Amino acid sequence: MSRKEKELKELVTEQPNSLTIGPPQDASSYHLIEPFSYLLSSHKQESQHAPATALLILNQEINVDLVRLWQLADVVVCADGAANRIYNYFATTSNQAEYIPNYIVGDFDSLKPEIGRYYESRGAKLIRQSSQYANDFNKAIFCIQLHFLYIKHNTQWPKEIDTDSGLSTTFQDKFQNQSSIPIKIYTLSAIGGRFDQTIQSINQLYILHQESPNLEVFYLTQNDILFLLYKGVNYVAYRGKTTFSKNGDTTPPTCGLLPLSSRAVVLSTHGLKYDVTQWTTQMTAYVSSSNRIVGENGFTVHCSDDILMNIEIDL
Amino acid sequence: MSRKEKELKELVTEQPNSLTIGPPQDASSYHLIEPFSYLLSSHKQESQHAPATALLILNQEINVDLVRLWQLADVVVCADGAANRIYNYFATTSNQAEYIPNYIVGDFDSLKPEIGRYYESRGAKLIRQSSQYANDFNKAIFCIQLHFLYIKHNTQWPKEIDTDSGLSTTFQDKFQNQSSIPIKIYTLSAIGGRFDQTIQSINQLYILHQESPNLEVFYLTQNDILFLLYKGVNYVAYRGKTTFSKNGDTTPPTCGLLPLSSRAVVLSTHGLKYDVTQWTTQMTAYVSSSNRIVGENGFTVHCSDDILMNIEIDL
Repeated sequence: MSRKEKELKELVTEQPNSLTIGPPQDASSYHLIEPFSYLLSSHKQESQHAPATALLILNQEINVDLVRLWQLADVVVCADGAANRIYNYFATTSNQAEYIPNYIVGDFDSLKPEIGRYYESRGAKLIRQSSQYANDFNKAIFCIQLHFLYIKHNTQWPKEIDTDSGLSTTFQDKFQNQSSIPIKIYTLSAIGGRFDQTIQSINQLYILHQESPNLEVFYLTQNDILFLLYKGVNYVAYRGKTTFSKNGDTTPPTCGLLPLSSRAVVLSTHGLKYDVTQWTTQMTAYVSSSNRIVGENGFTVHCSDDILMNIEIDL
Repeated sequence: MSRKEKELKELVTEQPNSLTIGPPQDASSYHLIEPFSYLLSSHKQESQHAPATALLILNQEINVDLVRLWQLADVVVCADGAANRIYNYFATTSNQAEYIPNYIVGDFDSLKPEIGRYYESRGAKLIRQSSQYANDFNKAIFCIQLHFLYIKHNTQWPKEIDTDSGLSTTFQDKFQNQSSIPIKIYTLSAIGGRFDQTIQSINQLYILHQESPNLEVFYLTQNDILFLLYKGVNYVAYRGKTTFSKNGDTTPPTCGLLPLSSRAVVLSTHGLKYDVTQWTTQMTAYVSSSNRIVGENGFTVHCSDDILMNIEIDL
């Protein structure tokens, strides 16, 4: 074993493949993260007090089970050409007319006019936002925030929305200082295309948590789910390890803790195959990848700063 | 336009779609980066004084033109199950026996034994490295370094290499303090799978540049090419903008400058659609994505620290 490999081995505690880790005792002192609550088929019934849930679809090939996600979302937003993608996706399953997004948002340089008309005639709200200084993801996030705010305040959307950047100005002018609504946003196709787009999505995750802490954003890919853990103590909870796999497989799922902010992060974990204590991670030194989750119903991560996590899922 | 959008607009200079930017005048004072030299069909003839070139294939689906890359590489290394991938790739083009990798390296938990035997019987060198504290990418990098060092020193590989981590210990014991050989390493499948693996690849890019500055590592994906720009002045050179597209399209290719180290980076650029001057970029604030290259044969980037760049290619 080389010097570096020995050094690394000394820093980690190798755990058995199964551990039971309860939530931290002081309930007020940790962030409860439930990335998989959308997978519970009884979600809608249970969710009287659960956060509102949005499905946001960006413009790339769709390679997940869209029906399941769609049925569990309170609102569905397509960013620009994503509407073409869902049109084609549902064409193959011959139930296009059942799945009408609530909103299509963007500069519409990708949206096919006939597909825009198809959805508009069936109730979708098309909101053109031409600004080249914001991206489709951000435009859609403002749309989702406004959607739930108008419902809460029992008001209608204004008749006219400025077509350059009316969503962001409306949000800022009318609602920025009002109490916000907790929303879970599951996003498809934010990760895995051109690399600058992937990194832009991660950049947005960090920024959104600072600017809009009421939002919990999850990125779903063909391989995994990505989300932020927050500065302090986090307890990531789920209903057993079969949650991660459609086959009911209980192999510990692979995961990573990825310090993609501009600072090193000091980590302590409990419930991973390779647990660490007061371990400094940064992109120019050590990064915890190809780790595994061994906690049966949850695990804890204590971090000195927000950090990105990914968990492998097969759904 | 919102406040943030206005703020961003003030920071950038919007350039025309074509600019001619020569290399900086003081040739000793900048890093010359030529990511596309592997694409020149006359590469092998021209390359008497060019860096050695390696093709490194990792274990994921192959979705690029492998033949072209293979023909231009001085050595081809498969990381573990990547050998299965190339076997299947060339099965469809019925020329498996023409494309034998020089090395297959890894813990061999993915390599199919019959495929290992197929390539070994045709001259590939199989090097088992079982250590779980190094990844296949790193094992392969040591193999590539040793390959060119043994050629340079006109010696043979040792008969026995420790099967745990013999490649790294051999390199460290015998060659770490010797003069190194410039090598360009084109890597497939480092990006785009599980997200922790993608980020581990970026982490390695930063670390390798510190530890082995003789190596220039490029990651190729289906959409783009990724590489580091180095602290100081960089001139990225190419033979015209048709380089980026197999169709000879001259649309300015999309690119990003991605500050994925643990620090903010101050950037000045010349030759991009949205050029910036003394602009601070960091993952928790602004990131330059969806930018475009307008320099006809090159562009310059002055950065306060190493920064990742991606350029969209269609090859």
